[in-house]
Amino acid sequence: MGRPKRVTIRDVAKAAAVSITTVSDALNGKGRLPAATRDRVVAVAAGLGYHASPNARRLRQGRTGAIGLYLPDRASGLDYYMNVALGAADAAFAHDLTLTLMPIRPDARQKISADLLDGLIVVDPMLTDPVLDTLAGLDVPIVSCERDLGSPARFAGVVTADNRAAVHELLGHLARQGATTTGLLGLAGDTAFGSDVRAAYLDWCAARGQPPLISQTPFVDSAESRYQAADQLLHDHPEIDAVVSAPEGGALGILHAAERRGIRVPDDMLIASCVDHSSLWTAKPPITAIDLNPRLMGRYGAELLADLLEGRAEGPVTRALPTRLVERDSTLPRAPR
Amino acid sequence: MGRPKRVTIRDVAKAAAVSITTVSDALNGKGRLPAATRDRVVAVAAGLGYHASPNARRLRQGRTGAIGLYLPDRASGLDYYMNVALGAADAAFAHDLTLTLMPIRPDARQKISADLLDGLIVVDPMLTDPVLDTLAGLDVPIVSCERDLGSPARFAGVVTADNRAAVHELLGHLARQGATTTGLLGLAGDTAFGSDVRAAYLDWCAARGQPPLISQTPFVDSAESRYQAADQLLHDHPEIDAVVSAPEGGALGILHAAERRGIRVPDDMLIASCVDHSSLWTAKPPITAIDLNPRLMGRYGAELLADLLEGRAEGPVTRALPTRLVERDSTLPRAPR
Repeated sequence: MGRPKRVTIRDVAKAAAVSITTVSDALNGKGRLPAATRDRVVAVAAGLGYHASPNARRLRQGRTGAIGLYLPDRASGLDYYMNVALGAADAAFAHDLTLTLMPIRPDARQKISADLLDGLIVVDPMLTDPVLDTLAGLDVPIVSCERDLGSPARFAGVVTADNRAAVHELLGHLARQGATTTGLLGLAGDTAFGSDVRAAYLDWCAARGQPPLISQTPFVDSAESRYQAADQLLHDHPEIDAVVSAPEGGALGILHAAERRGIRVPDDMLIASCVDHSSLWTAKPPITAIDLNPRLMGRYGAELLADLLEGRAEGPVTRALPTRLVERDSTLPRAPR
Repeated sequence: MGRPKRVTIRDVAKAAAVSITTVSDALNGKGRLPAATRDRVVAVAAGLGYHASPNARRLRQGRTGAIGLYLPDRASGLDYYMNVALGAADAAFAHDLTLTLMPIRPDARQKISADLLDGLIVVDPMLTDPVLDTLAGLDVPIVSCERDLGSPARFAGVVTADNRAAVHELLGHLARQGATTTGLLGLAGDTAFGSDVRAAYLDWCAARGQPPLISQTPFVDSAESRYQAADQLLHDHPEIDAVVSAPEGGALGILHAAERRGIRVPDDMLIASCVDHSSLWTAKPPITAIDLNPRLMGRYGAELLADLLEGRAEGPVTRALPTRLVERDSTLPRAPR
């Protein structure tokens, strides 16, 4: 397909036999040009169909107009990250920015450059990610969606949910529904989210005098290994009458393991998830979950970055994301126990 | 965070007391400048820490360096699209392009402009999407990932899998495993994929003399309604001994419906999916599926667009994506029936 090249400011300068600076000044009403020159340049530009692209305008300001979205390498298969990305894309567009999806392959990630970006959103920074230091060395502001456990000072802004309070609320709900011994399908502590869920659970156990019953899975994980971890927990602790899953998808593994062991949900055991997902609404029974608002997380990340870029905010700055407990049948037994 | 502004060509011109064109010519070794001027400009640029951004270089060529990714509004919750996006981001980067995620909100979509993009990848164009005509009117080449059923000529390139052949292979596999009456959990015909699966199934039924047994769901759909559609199919046609799902996630609905009816998989009934997903590997039993290679689809889309932009390909051009049948326990009964 033969695509006509966009008319550039250079083309206008050549056709009008003036310098690029003169064209720019004439079209932007700047400088001290004779009116005749200004009028001639404007006429030539109009004749060629030239209009300054937003890109060109930004470039004159030393800006690219693009912000980057850096997802964890485990992003594939997790609905949470798709929603963060779509929320960020919508918000970037609303701020006359575009959202550039950073590559996921390690070799390509090493080549991420500040020349392409005005700023960056890093979602769920992992303690073990070697690229984060490279990103921090780029001369652009970075917002993290959820806190950076490594060197928080390397980022200019953070959007964070009060995950500990949300998990406390969930555990309180389970207790009110009759749970006396709650187990946790936990995550390793290499992200703020995994660390928050674990800390909230341990606090709760300490306050109630319940021994912590945790089966741990790494953040990068398969549904099969989550099922195995859940099954092990139920095998080791038959006294458990409620289980909370930290990872997305873990609650379905618990449900499966319970079904296979003849444990009825919610009659014999309650199940809840710290991350909501459409498959939880439609599980049999539907599973209670914390709605982490991933679309809003993406939107807040892009908006905070836009504020930092436009000088409406000064780093370091933290913004709070609301979350919401969604109660469903998996934690609502019909009769009090 | 006070971020120092990037040094622009305008800053260099001002510091060296020459025009922007002179700076550009000096740094690019073009034009007929006195050696002394050239050396002085180079020294000033180095002193200020100026380096031409790839963005600036592209702008001089009338290019932005960015290609857009336009996902269907149902993208959320479907792993397929996340993988297409990540594959496209990797490939764009490898071609010194960046991948811009297009917004998903209808109002923001109406503002998509060619000023931001050198080209566009449209994934699974839907017959009913009113924005596609707007995109086609932009003065940039467009590649579609899967064919456009509306006006294919509006796009410069297409990457397509031979979905009909893949579904034929799947149906042949089911027959060899003993299936005599295969039902379809189908999709509406508003995408090439939904239409291909349906056509292949109808061909197969006609050739075998089997009446078509289809329960249809729209592409934008919930797990709950897919379960209901599957359950209806099993209720209406107890003679069915195999079911194929067109939508991602539909196979789990079929599995659920079968379990509730006391139908054992694979002993009493085979189940297979036209789209693979990690939840199918780990279902009990694991479910046979067509691997549509979504990462590769994204990569091919970005590479074809790069080829069109760089003149290595001329539209209209079609590229073929390989797919692969992954046989799992859900269609491998232990004993011949």
